[in-house]
Parts: sequence; C-alpha cells; structure tokens
Amino acid sequence: MTDASSSTRRTVRVELGDRSYDILIGPGLIAAAGSEIAARLKGRRIAVVTDEHVGPIYLDPFMRSLSTSGIEAVSLVLPAGEKTKGFEHLMAVCDSVLGARIERNDAVVALGGGVIGDLTGFAAGVVRRGSRFIQVPTSLLAQVDSSVGGKTGINSRHGKNLIGVFHQPDLVLADTDVLDTLSQREFRAGYAEVAKYGLIDKPDFFSWLETNWREIFAGGPARIEAIATSCQAKADVVAADERENGPRALLNLGHTFGHALEAATGYDSSRLVHGEGVSIGMVLAHQFSARMNLASPDAARRVEAHLTEVGLPVSMTQIPGDLPPAERLMDAIAQDKKVKSGKLTFILTRGIGQSFVADDVPASEVLSFLKDKYPR
Amino acid sequence: MTDASSSTRRTVRVELGDRSYDILIGPGLIAAAGSEIAARLKGRRIAVVTDEHVGPIYLDPFMRSLSTSGIEAVSLVLPAGEKTKGFEHLMAVCDSVLGARIERNDAVVALGGGVIGDLTGFAAGVVRRGSRFIQVPTSLLAQVDSSVGGKTGINSRHGKNLIGVFHQPDLVLADTDVLDTLSQREFRAGYAEVAKYGLIDKPDFFSWLETNWREIFAGGPARIEAIATSCQAKADVVAADERENGPRALLNLGHTFGHALEAATGYDSSRLVHGEGVSIGMVLAHQFSARMNLASPDAARRVEAHLTEVGLPVSMTQIPGDLPPAERLMDAIAQDKKVKSGKLTFILTRGIGQSFVADDVPASEVLSFLKDKYPR
Repeated sequence: MTDASSSTRRTVRVELGDRSYDILIGPGLIAAAGSEIAARLKGRRIAVVTDEHVGPIYLDPFMRSLSTSGIEAVSLVLPAGEKTKGFEHLMAVCDSVLGARIERNDAVVALGGGVIGDLTGFAAGVVRRGSRFIQVPTSLLAQVDSSVGGKTGINSRHGKNLIGVFHQPDLVLADTDVLDTLSQREFRAGYAEVAKYGLIDKPDFFSWLETNWREIFAGGPARIEAIATSCQAKADVVAADERENGPRALLNLGHTFGHALEAATGYDSSRLVHGEGVSIGMVLAHQFSARMNLASPDAARRVEAHLTEVGLPVSMTQIPGDLPPAERLMDAIAQDKKVKSGKLTFILTRGIGQSFVADDVPASEVLSFLKDKYPR
Repeated sequence: MTDASSSTRRTVRVELGDRSYDILIGPGLIAAAGSEIAARLKGRRIAVVTDEHVGPIYLDPFMRSLSTSGIEAVSLVLPAGEKTKGFEHLMAVCDSVLGARIERNDAVVALGGGVIGDLTGFAAGVVRRGSRFIQVPTSLLAQVDSSVGGKTGINSRHGKNLIGVFHQPDLVLADTDVLDTLSQREFRAGYAEVAKYGLIDKPDFFSWLETNWREIFAGGPARIEAIATSCQAKADVVAADERENGPRALLNLGHTFGHALEAATGYDSSRLVHGEGVSIGMVLAHQFSARMNLASPDAARRVEAHLTEVGLPVSMTQIPGDLPPAERLMDAIAQDKKVKSGKLTFILTRGIGQSFVADDVPASEVLSFLKDKYPR
C-alpha cells in the first residue's frame, strides 16, 4: 500500500448498529487486504472463494497479502458465470468452509463479482447459522451494488435470487485498480447500476454522469467518486431499511423487468448480463411510467439517450435470439419476489431522480405495454 | 375442536418483540389447525411438508382442516429419517414452495418431527430470504425442543446441524393426541429433552419427573403439564438469548457428546436416535463434571438411575455395533459448532439443576475421560 493509494482512498460506513461495517474504495486494496483484514478480524483463518476468471489474476496476490499478515487461508475456485449461483455450488462452498474449520472469529471471503459474492455470502450466512464474511468485489457491478447491503442468494428455476438470506459483510474492500481488467461490456453493465442511483433520487448525480461518463470509463478520480457516491447511496438506503420492507425496494428500479428478461434468456450471459437487463428494465420502467401518465416521455427519452451513448442496450429488440411470448415474461414478473397477495409491485417514476414504489400496478397494463414493446 | 379440548389447552408465548409467537399445546390441535391458522395468517395459501411416516396418518385430517377454513394447500411428502436433513431435500422443499407460489403473507408448514421441522424451517428461512413458517410437531422431541426457538438446519458430512439459519416460526401447534401413535422408543427419546430442562436449572421439575414419569408416558394431564413446562423453559431461554451468544448454550446440555455419537453412528437411527444420544451425553456431562471435581458423583448416579428407569440408554456400551476410535469422536466434538478459537465449550454442572457454560475445557481431559468410558 503506497501513500498515494491511501490518500486517494475513500471510506463509506454502512450504519447498522452492532453490524455496521466499512467499505474501503480505492487503488491497491488487494495488495493491502491482509493488513486491513488482520486489523479488524479476531480469528486468523480464512476461506476464500473465487472463480475461474478472477482467480488466475487476483488469487495469488490476495493470498500473499493474507499470508504476509499472518492469516492462514484456503481457497476454492468455482466456474465463472450466473449458472454457478445454484444449490450445487452452495453445497460445495459450505463443505469447503466447514472442511477448512473456519470458526466464529474467522471469516469467509468472496473474491469476485456479483455471482461469487451472492453465493459466498449465502454460504457464510448459513454455515454455523452465520459466519463472518468479507467482500472483495472485482467487478464494477459488485462494487457499487451487490457487495453492499447484505442481500445474498442463489437462483431457482422459478427465478433469480429467490433463495437466500440477509447476511451483512463485516468489511468490503473495493480495489478500483481491478476494474481496468474488466471488458468494456462488463464495465458498462456495472455502470447501469451507477446510473440507477441517479435515477432513483439523485437528479444532479445523473446530470453529472451525463457529463463525466467518459472519465469514469477511462479511470481516475471521477471513477472513484462515482463508486463512492453509489456505495453511499446504497448504504443510506440499507441503513434505513435493511430487510426491504419499505424504501429499499427503490433499489429495484429496472430490476423487475430486468430479472424477467434474464430468466427469459436462460441466464445466458452471451445474450444478456444482469446490468444489461437492468439498463433495458430502467428504460422500460420510465416508458411505462410515461404510458401511465406519471412522468413526461422526455424523462424516458433522456434515460434512453444516455444509456445508449455509453453503449448499453435499451430495448428488448437488442437482445440476440428469440424471447418467449410476452405472457411467459409476465409469469416471470409475477413470480419475482416483489409480489404481495397477487398485486404487482413496480418501481415507477415521476421523472429523472423521482422514483417511487407502486404496489398496485395492474398486471393487464403491464402485459399490454410489453406486447407493444415486443420484438415480434 | 371440542370444549373439552380447548379447556385443557395450554398456551406458551415466546417473547421476541415483533417476532413473538404462540405455542398451543393440547389435544385436537390438528383438527383445529385450519381455524387457528386462518385466525393469524393474512394469506390464504400454504405449502405443507411432511414425511412418509407422519403423512399417511395426519396429512389428510390436516389438509381437510385447512380446506374447511378456506386455506388452499399443497403438500410434499419426504422420506422419513435423519438422512433427509441434507441439501438434496432442502432443494426439493424450496422448489416445491416456490412452485406453489407461496407469497409473503402465506406460510410454509412443517408437519412432522424434528427432521421435518429443521429442514422445512431452513427452507422457509431462505425462500424469498424468509417466508412465514408454522410448526406442527408430531413427536415429543419436536414439541418440547426443536419446534421452539427458531434454530433450523441440515447436516453436513462434517457434523450435525452445521448449516442453517435462525428463523422463528409464526405459530406452533403441538397436538398432544399425536403422541399416542409414537413408538415407546421415540417417546423416550423425546423424554430425554424433557428431563434436560430439569437438569439445566429446574431441580424441582426433575424431582417431579422422577415421581410422575409413568403418568407422562401414559398420557393425560401430567403429559400436557410436562410439555408446557418444557416449552416455557425453552421459550424463556430463547427470549433471553435468541442467537445463542450466551445462556442459550445451556440448552446444549448433553448435546456435544450426543452429536458426536450421532456422527459416529452415521446418523443411523437403528443404532442411535438424537434423544438417546442426548441421554448418554447428559450422563457423560454429569460424570465428566464429577471427574473435574465440579459436582458430586451422586448427581451423575441419580441422572443415570432415572434415565435407565424410563428405558433410555445411559452409556456408550449400550449403542449397538462398533464405534470409531475415541480420537475420531474427539474430532467430531472439536468440529461441533460450539467452538471458539480452538477451545472446547461444554455444558457442565455443579449438581442436579445447576448446569453452566464452561468455555475453556481442555481437549486432553475430554479425550482421556472418553477413553476410560469407551466400550473396548
């Protein structure tokens, strides 16, 4: 850890009483992981879970950093991709953590993107009915969204993230250097979640993104600023509503449509990744809000223009391959977990940065909207 | 539900703030289940999980009772036995609950003994990151222990109950009529947990059991009294320490040895069931306490005499078949979840009803004690 790294580093605190924790954001945090963890953890054993994309690049330096700080670690490398988020790999992670004799003061570490974080966090949440957990997110999506807030889980054939627990991490280390090794497509997908925070309730941040997005993509201070602003936005929502009984639902802007599209494409990342689904979903949510006369069509057009400019898909017609009939997409929407007594809950908007939870959206309106938008 | 039933019914309240719930104890509660559930649940859909022993006897009357009260239900019948508490069946229950479109105001019901309760509770705790859950325990063990307090889980090859969550039920219906269909062996196994509450901190209750156990085995008011006293004892401990950071550990009296013996016999119920392991474990805990000069050997002799009188095993020599070497039993003990930074935590005692948590028991003392007691 150089002086330069620590001077540009930002810390966001997630306030949750005796389960509060820090998110450290900045360059060089993988190399500094051992000392940051050793300073906070009573135990001296760690089980690291990563995948076949991240492992070959970052597992060695991460393990060296732990070892230098006197932490013993074992590692498990899983296949990369959304399909890893299932029972089979959950079982493998639990078995590996128990086999490593991780005790209550030790920790389980997720070194990877959202898939590794969600799966490993779920395992940490159920091994011994709850073990310490550290997130080292290596994708932009994971840094600004999935590694913060304690939602963990796996997919079911009935839908995405339908099985899981709330289990807060004890620490998040977001090393911004690792984002340089992401593909443009992956970086863009994470950017969709950054833009989401603006669209929820930060119109000034969205305007700032419209002006500065090139600098965020290129790296440097604007990137760290965008990540810190996103983490702070999520931390604020989580502190106010940890279990998603109220305002936390706003974080699902674009996600109800997005999840349904991911299910409809069989979680095949060659066709659609999560952030792309969210991008299309956010545009659909703004268009649907306009159709319901809640917002001006200009807001939807502005969202569509910005996401198009950064290279994200904004319409179902941009998804390669065939989609199932609109009715099957509706089934996936109805099965999504944001359903109460048969009524559909959606995040809709009154304009840029003016999103709200609508919990009585008529299914028939959604279906007829989808049919209009459908690529056939 | 007859007037006679409701007049003999007892209610124990588990006080956990906004997650408080009632345990109803008495005859006729399976027939009354529909009205009791309908009075408390907002939703009108239920997924019932049971096993191949309980299902053929109680599933029909239970489903009829639900239907009469306007509740739609689906059911899933699993194989009976401890081996059902694994990932494969957890996955099946989650899938069944999601397939039945159980929503947030609906509920998942466990109709069965401890295995069905622990497995189904775990599934309810992770489906949609936490669904409503109702326990209808059909064994004495489940009525006085596992259905109360929110501990759920499955076994791992590394040990029993090592994977799970804390997930409190919304209601427990303990129908005392169903205990008449239990085998004597099963009833006795549950009785070990009843005796445990006396041995933890209720010496008068233990004396009362020594006098009245025949009436408890025969049925009638003493049985309901013993169950209600046990549930109240557990409810008090759980209310004081839901997550087992302190006094709740006392409920593990006899369980560290017991779990190790269950693991050593491969969870083979023809050799040893949980309550039998606890019975032997409680005797060992009292004997080990005497050896450590913490308690008089008379206490251990009194526990051994009473448990022998009711027909429970009290020594490892009574387990049919070979046991692995004492060293392997020690491994299982060390891997048990009540371990902190390498030191062994045991529940020891200063005499009848004077148990306490000892968190610095030397492994070498335990091993040499086990070798003395070993059946070879």
